[in-house]
Amino acid sequence: MQKLYVIGIGAGDPDQVTVQAIKAMNAVDVFFVVDKGAQKRELAELRARILTEHVTGPYRVVEVPDPPRERTPTDYVQTVDDWHDRRATALAVEFARTAGTGAILVWGDPALYDSTLRIVERVLAGGTRFDYQVIPGVTSVAALAARHRIVLNRVGEPVQLTTGRRLREDGLTHDAVVMLDADPDFAALPPDSQVWWGAYLGMPDETLIAGRVAEVAERIRDVRSELRARKGWIMDTYLLRRPLGRPRG
Amino acid sequence: MQKLYVIGIGAGDPDQVTVQAIKAMNAVDVFFVVDKGAQKRELAELRARILTEHVTGPYRVVEVPDPPRERTPTDYVQTVDDWHDRRATALAVEFARTAGTGAILVWGDPALYDSTLRIVERVLAGGTRFDYQVIPGVTSVAALAARHRIVLNRVGEPVQLTTGRRLREDGLTHDAVVMLDADPDFAALPPDSQVWWGAYLGMPDETLIAGRVAEVAERIRDVRSELRARKGWIMDTYLLRRPLGRPRG
Repeated sequence: MQKLYVIGIGAGDPDQVTVQAIKAMNAVDVFFVVDKGAQKRELAELRARILTEHVTGPYRVVEVPDPPRERTPTDYVQTVDDWHDRRATALAVEFARTAGTGAILVWGDPALYDSTLRIVERVLAGGTRFDYQVIPGVTSVAALAARHRIVLNRVGEPVQLTTGRRLREDGLTHDAVVMLDADPDFAALPPDSQVWWGAYLGMPDETLIAGRVAEVAERIRDVRSELRARKGWIMDTYLLRRPLGRPRG
Repeated sequence: MQKLYVIGIGAGDPDQVTVQAIKAMNAVDVFFVVDKGAQKRELAELRARILTEHVTGPYRVVEVPDPPRERTPTDYVQTVDDWHDRRATALAVEFARTAGTGAILVWGDPALYDSTLRIVERVLAGGTRFDYQVIPGVTSVAALAARHRIVLNRVGEPVQLTTGRRLREDGLTHDAVVMLDADPDFAALPPDSQVWWGAYLGMPDETLIAGRVAEVAERIRDVRSELRARKGWIMDTYLLRRPLGRPRG
């Protein structure tokens, strides 16, 4: 393999792909796909649709088996580290079998809470040689804000990007966009906080809820459970804004 | 005017425009343009190139005068607030003269340190009626990370989006992407911090520097001054990562 593209393909709407991503996809011989769990089939179909719509030449799709990962680890960073290593090994094997140009498509953007670049760096560190280029994409954060028609930051204020895990550990010290929250719990938040929540952004099942946490927390919880039960998986994210006038954390 | 699109058009590379943005631009009768200062000519040319490349039908471009804004205000939030009001008034006048579909193109994404949505909300609050839709774009933050081939967050860690002003007030309490910093000063940072800096991302003059702050701060300062002097304007952003093992702020 001479070259690898890591391509951000937007939050889910096939039209959220950039011209740069389309040009790169049309230079690709092999797309490496690492899917997992219940969301596998639906996301694979969506990705196939993106390729069918935008790529004219012939290409192959190679599925890379995803090594199992402990879901409730005692040492989070170490567990993720081991899993990255095993994933890098699996990818290195596939890269060695490939001639020409490869690509990995990433939902949203590869720079935000995604492991692809870390794993590619490990493949390189392991001695496999290839050129690689990252194509940025529209993040689910930008998609969330666009659908709610909001600005993430208040005038001159910072905004944090964080995970559900860290929100529970740290509390809401700043206005924050929360990603990767398997079990959102709004009960610990100041009731006057505001939330802008979105699931399956840009996809047919897109669902949006916004309001004061005290007023909408229960509805988000119910709607989220119902959606996850019906579809078998969920991708969602939300912006939390602290009550006005609250001292800075 | 029946409808307004606020369209994120990416950080500067015309290929960073999404298919969704291109479809929206092709439905537009009038593009409203609010440029300012030294960067005006060059950005106007870049935007004109984006329109020429991607829009097939006829359209008009209307320049909206940008009211002057105090650059070193005593009350930042109040000054910005007044400026938004004056800008909303100027836009409302142009909207009233327009039939069909209008659009405002925003560099990067409208949800991040951009005033367009706040101003549009004021036009609506002032009684002008129209439908509006936001099209998300690739942020300069994603473009920066892609060009440096890095993930913004460390595994499981938050990352902050902030301004130069707030970085100076708060210090480097978290890993942070700093935007709108008219005068970056790395002297106050821990020397073992790491920085990934980029200017004119996606444009012909794109410039990237990365390394330990102690080693690259001076070079960034010099290169930045030289570029700004030569071109008359600069657009840059940078990721700061705190030294490993430093206690959380």
